[in-house]
Order: sequence, then structure tokens, then C-alpha cells
Amino acid sequence: MRITDIEITPIAVQDPPLLNSEGVHQTHALRSIIKVTTSNGLVGWGETYGDDVMLHWLRAVAPRLDGVDVFDLNHIESIVDDELLTNADSITTDLPAGAGYPMANAASVKTRAAVFSAFEVPCLDLQGKSLGRPVSDLLGGRRRDRVEYSAYLFYKWAEHPQKPYPADSWGEVLTPEAMVEECRRMVSEYGFQSIKLKGGVLPPAQEIETVRALRAEFPDLPVRIDPNAAWTADVAIAVGQHLDGELEYLEDPVSGTRAMAEVARRVSMPLATNMCVTSFPDIPEAVREGAPQVILSDHHFWGGLRKSVELDQLCATFGLKLSMHSNTHLGISLAAMTHFGAVARSLAYSCDTHTPWQTENIIVPSEELTFKNGSVAVPTGPGLGVEVDEDAVAALHEQWRTCGVRTRDDVSPMRAVDPAWTGDVPRFFTL
Amino acid sequence: MRITDIEITPIAVQDPPLLNSEGVHQTHALRSIIKVTTSNGLVGWGETYGDDVMLHWLRAVAPRLDGVDVFDLNHIESIVDDELLTNADSITTDLPAGAGYPMANAASVKTRAAVFSAFEVPCLDLQGKSLGRPVSDLLGGRRRDRVEYSAYLFYKWAEHPQKPYPADSWGEVLTPEAMVEECRRMVSEYGFQSIKLKGGVLPPAQEIETVRALRAEFPDLPVRIDPNAAWTADVAIAVGQHLDGELEYLEDPVSGTRAMAEVARRVSMPLATNMCVTSFPDIPEAVREGAPQVILSDHHFWGGLRKSVELDQLCATFGLKLSMHSNTHLGISLAAMTHFGAVARSLAYSCDTHTPWQTENIIVPSEELTFKNGSVAVPTGPGLGVEVDEDAVAALHEQWRTCGVRTRDDVSPMRAVDPAWTGDVPRFFTL
Repeated sequence: MRITDIEITPIAVQDPPLLNSEGVHQTHALRSIIKVTTSNGLVGWGETYGDDVMLHWLRAVAPRLDGVDVFDLNHIESIVDDELLTNADSITTDLPAGAGYPMANAASVKTRAAVFSAFEVPCLDLQGKSLGRPVSDLLGGRRRDRVEYSAYLFYKWAEHPQKPYPADSWGEVLTPEAMVEECRRMVSEYGFQSIKLKGGVLPPAQEIETVRALRAEFPDLPVRIDPNAAWTADVAIAVGQHLDGELEYLEDPVSGTRAMAEVARRVSMPLATNMCVTSFPDIPEAVREGAPQVILSDHHFWGGLRKSVELDQLCATFGLKLSMHSNTHLGISLAAMTHFGAVARSLAYSCDTHTPWQTENIIVPSEELTFKNGSVAVPTGPGLGVEVDEDAVAALHEQWRTCGVRTRDDVSPMRAVDPAWTGDVPRFFTL
Repeated sequence: MRITDIEITPIAVQDPPLLNSEGVHQTHALRSIIKVTTSNGLVGWGETYGDDVMLHWLRAVAPRLDGVDVFDLNHIESIVDDELLTNADSITTDLPAGAGYPMANAASVKTRAAVFSAFEVPCLDLQGKSLGRPVSDLLGGRRRDRVEYSAYLFYKWAEHPQKPYPADSWGEVLTPEAMVEECRRMVSEYGFQSIKLKGGVLPPAQEIETVRALRAEFPDLPVRIDPNAAWTADVAIAVGQHLDGELEYLEDPVSGTRAMAEVARRVSMPLATNMCVTSFPDIPEAVREGAPQVILSDHHFWGGLRKSVELDQLCATFGLKLSMHSNTHLGISLAAMTHFGAVARSLAYSCDTHTPWQTENIIVPSEELTFKNGSVAVPTGPGLGVEVDEDAVAALHEQWRTCGVRTRDDVSPMRAVDPAWTGDVPRFFTL
């Protein structure tokens, strides 16, 4: 079952003005849609980052996969490694190496893993389709029939300053009261059973107040907060101590494994990360330091779904727990995330999803990928179990062509409003 | 593709009087052959330990797998765990927990992994057959077309004292000269490119002489020695220092990860093990201690082929290297070992095999599983790629019925010759 064609389609989706420690989401979020066709006429789908650097590497690798068997994943990985290591200098970039953004250095393990993952997932989709089996079966068989996701709460503006399209329906959220309202609607519409608050936006004391307001209003729902390294270690420790007993975990309050471990020793809740442990070579230091204790897996940058299973074994071996990271994503990614969530034994928390914030869609609606009580049923159809709406992809590609966004950059749109803005972290040196 | 039948057939194969630190091999080595049939009429094969305790657990688990899908490996693992953890007391044993022998404690991770592996391999054989794909494809695709094995040299007697069948053709080997002769024949017949010497038999100074004689005669072939913990740490360090520059690794000179690390700090060659790091929970200590540096993988007790791939990732993450352990085995096991050897990225040494010592066979001879230049071609047919000779299995089952051996016990046959023999290690307290 050999690859005969790979189409890589950049798309752009409308993204609300969500705030984080780097700045504010751009008007559009970028994704790449990868369509792989094989000699026997099957089609496999993948979804990953859509910035220009990722597109460059996807397009450089794709022709080299012509004729490669979709089961030959180790060989595909070696082709990706060769392409990126040999040609690391073929594209220069001064892109920010921000949260979840792996493309800054072509030679890094994380970058190569991200490019490999973009092809691994459609190959697994194809393997599953050729077998008439869901991808979760190729990963050892599901341990659960539904995967739990958490409400992903953001502070936000009412709309983008340039008003490129009508404002979203969520309004401005910059106070504890408005955040409780955002949460109420999100829980009501999706049934989420846990809450993730994107922090690092307001002074820490106000974010503590927001957590307390959420806890008061939703006492049964565990809450986590993720300030994306906006705090100093002292601030992180103070927040952790103020919120003793209130957080299921504290995610990336500071930068770097060593600083995370310093915080971990002074607070009661576990530390979680998708910033300091983002590839296998990062793990030995975390094991040595004893923190962070929770890794937010993400098949998009850990090297695909099979390597996510390997990460799962590694976590089980060292007593680490898994949660799951998300960037802005659409339905192909959600399906892949759900297949891994179905098999991961170390998964101890609800997974992240940006789902509620995207109003555009590229898959044909299915019962399985619809949120109920905050969870998604693991697709049981062949492969990823999603049917892609190619007209919708074409429309979002047209949006990509015209929207002007070509890379993830949360700093510049904030600087347009606040010329002194740098996006540097840590930003908050006191509560 | 659901399991409709599982046949478990104990067999016995003639085994030469090979010597090790525990004593001497019995007249017969035991294996279990596992034949799994599915609803669509396919048959998958497995091979594992054949002692009574293993048979007890295989037979306890097998009926519980009726109707289970062969892709549902995580579910099969949970059934094995439940059976063994719930009924750990249903069979008592005072069996020796010797080298490579995992069955002493039903509740241990290693025992459960061994029982799971016995079913995982035939399920992968079936998955491959249903796809028309070799098992190596299910493990990510082969990184090499042939897997290298090493000559496995043993000190030995000319024949078993009770003379149950005609003596083997290798004669007595108890001197450096005889060992060089054994090696010459083995290298000539199989083409091995590296040498493993089973030590722990003669006083260490004589084993040093044997290594030197082998190095002098075969200067291009790397040599390793495995005394199965027969030495004290002082002896191990002295041997390691005497053989500085002569060994590719020193395998299990002493018992326990901490003692291994003590030796590792004083010798130049890496330490290898199949005794102190034999399951995932053993790994954190080895990582902390920085030794042993080489793990001899063995899918029979690491929980199957997929978990062996997970072990491979773990080794790559922590800079550990893989070699491969073998107990006495036949062709089904050799095929499975070769499929994993084909995909393991951390495999840095030739694998162990007992192949030259067995004269009986249960698979239909194939070009692929024949040794050439010390290596075996990875089978490219569906599944494991072996065709089992069921008449041969039946004959070896009859031999099992009559041979009187029911468990692996190298101590008793040595004690029959030397009443003071205990099999305890360490045995050698000076060179």
C-alpha cells in the first residue's frame, strides 16, 4: 500500500481575540490539512500546524514519500530526519518559539517529530482503513469508550481591533464575574466536567480571584490554571500556596524544568507542562528533578500517535501522569487526539481542547465526535473515523489565501494596541 | 476477528548438559506452544516457557480470551492482570527464581508480562496474517533486513550422567582450548560475527584465560561474558580490569542494580543485564545509578513485542543500549525475536540465541530463518512468517509427556553429581 500522492493544503480559521502571556490570538489560526492517497485508492487524512515554516518542511518531505509504504513508519521518520537535518539552513526564521510552537529550529528533535507526526497520522488512518479498523486498535485497543475534555477558559477581548469579521458571541472577559459567565455557558453547551483557565494575563492576584470564583460557582469541577511561564518562581509559589487545595494541577507557571521543580517543592499540587518537557530528550531532567509530574502529551509534536503510546509507557515507568495539550485545532486533530486518549493508560486528567472557540469545521458532523457531558466518543469506524468535507477545506484554504496571516504570532497584534508590549516572560514579579 | 480457540501444548526438547552458575541444564528444556484460532479461520502461533507454573497460568487465562478481538491487546493484558492478581495464591511454588525464569511470583509485573506476552505474539501473528503483512510492519517497519546473533558458547559436559539419549556432537568443554574448538565449529557452521561466553562455571582466572584464548583465535569478533551473578563485586571488578579492552560488555557479573553500578564505576566496559533490569519498574533505579548501561531485552518477559518497542524508546530516551536475551527456544520464538530485532533502534549488539544447541525443530525450514554470516533475515511473509510443523509439535509433546521434566531446575541435576551443590551465588570470592 504505497503512497502515490500527498496534498498539503494550508487553511485559516477565524480565531477569537483570546489572551495569553504572549499577547493575543491573531484574527486567524493556521492549520495544514494533509491528504495522502495510496496505490489502492484509499485516502488518509492528517492535520497539523499551518505556518509557513511547517508548510516549507511538509512540502520538502512530501515528494520524498512517493512510493513509500504506509506501514513503513520508521522509514518515513528517517526520511524526515534526513530532510530536516540536511537542509536545516534552507529556511531562516526569527519566529517566536512560543507555547506549543515547535518550528523554531529545523534540526531539533521536536521540529522533526512534528513534521513526522504530520505524515504518521494519515498513514495510521490509511492502515486502519485498509484493515477496516479504528486507529485506536492499531495502538493496542481502547481502554475507554469516551475521552474526557476540559472547558478551556480564556480571558478575551470582545473583538479583534481591526474587526475583520463580526464579533464572536462570547463578549469581553476580563473579570472574575465575566469568566464565571463564560464557564457557565461552556459547561452548559458542552457538559465539561473540568475547567482549564488560561492565565498569565491579569495580575496574579486577580487570576487567583478568578479561580476562587470558578471554584465557588462550580464546586464539583476540578480547576487548573496555565499562565504559560508568565510568573517568577516566587509568584508561582505564592499563587500555589494561596490556591492550596483548589487546583488539580498548576501548569507551566515558570520556564524550565529546574524552575518548575523549585516551585513543585514548595506547593501541594502537581506541576504540569507542555513547555519544558516537550520531547523525549527533555524527560531525563524531569525524572532527575522529580518535576513536573504531569506531561501534557500532544501527538502533533511528540512524533505522532505511536510515539505517544511510547511516552505513555515511559510515564507509567517513572510514575508521571499524562494530560493532553491542544493548540487551536479542527476535527481531524480532535479525532486523532481522541484515539490516543482512548488507549493512554497514564491519562489521569481531562484533555485540553480548543473546540469551543472554533466556529468553522472541516469534517462531516458525526455523532462520535460531538461533545456530550464534556467527552467525545472514540470513533469506531475505519482509521481515524472522520469524513472530511473537501469543500469546507477549499473554502478555508481560500480564507488562508486572503487573510494575510502566515505564522503564529500572538505578540504583534498585542503590540499594535500596546507599543511597549514585548511578550517576554516572566511578566509578573509580584502578586 | 475474535478468538474462538486457544490450544496450549507443552513440549520438551533435548538439551545438552550446558553449565552455568546455577548448575547444569536438564536433559530436556520445556516450551509451550500457543495456537490461537479466530472466527475467520486464521491461526496464530506463539512460544514461551513450558514449566508447570506457566502452563497453569496460560490455561487459566485462555478460556477468558474466548471471543476477544485479537486487536484488543490492552484488554487482553487487563484480563491477564486480573487473573494473576486475583488468583496469585491458586498455585504454590518453591521454584528457583533463576536467570531468565520469571514465574516465581504470580503477582509480579514480570510474571504477568510473561503470561501476557504468550498471547500477544500470536495475536500479532494473526493481525499480520489478516493484513498480509509481516509483524515487523505492525511494529513500525523494519530498520534492517537481517538481525545479527552471537555465538553462544557454554562450558559443558560430554553428556548427561543418566545418558537419556545419545551424547551430542560437541563433546566435553572445560578448558580454554576446548572452548576455542567449540567456537571454531560454531562460527564455521553459523557464521557468527560475535561471541557470548556463558561464564560463572570455572574459577574466574580460568574464564579470563578462556576469553583471552578466544580473543587470540578470533581477533575480529567482539566477546562478552555472562557469569550470571556468580562473582562478588571485588571479583567482578578484578575480572573487568584484567579484561580491559577485551570485552564488548560484561553481563550480570553480580546481583542487583546497585552492585552492578558499583562494578560499572570501576571497569571500562559497559555492564549489561537480563537479571537486574527485567521489567519496567526496574528501570528508574538503573537510570538513577547510571548502570547497567545495556539491557538485554526479551519479549517473552518484557510483555511482548509492542512493549519491547516501548522499551526501545525508553532506552533511546535515557541513552541505554539494547541487546537481546534468549532462553532455550525454537523457531516461533526466533521469528518473534527477529521481528523485534528488525525494528529496535537502540539495538547496538548482536542478539543472543540458543539456536545451535537445539537439534529438534517445530517450524518448516525456511530460507529466512536460516543463519547466514551469523544473521537471520527478517521474515517478510504475513505475521511471524513461520509455518509450524504440527506433527513435530505432537512428537515433542509426547516427549514432554514421558521425559519427566516439569520445571526449569539447573540445581538438582548438578546436586545429583555433587551433593554439596547449592546453586547459590555468588560462588567465586577470589579470582
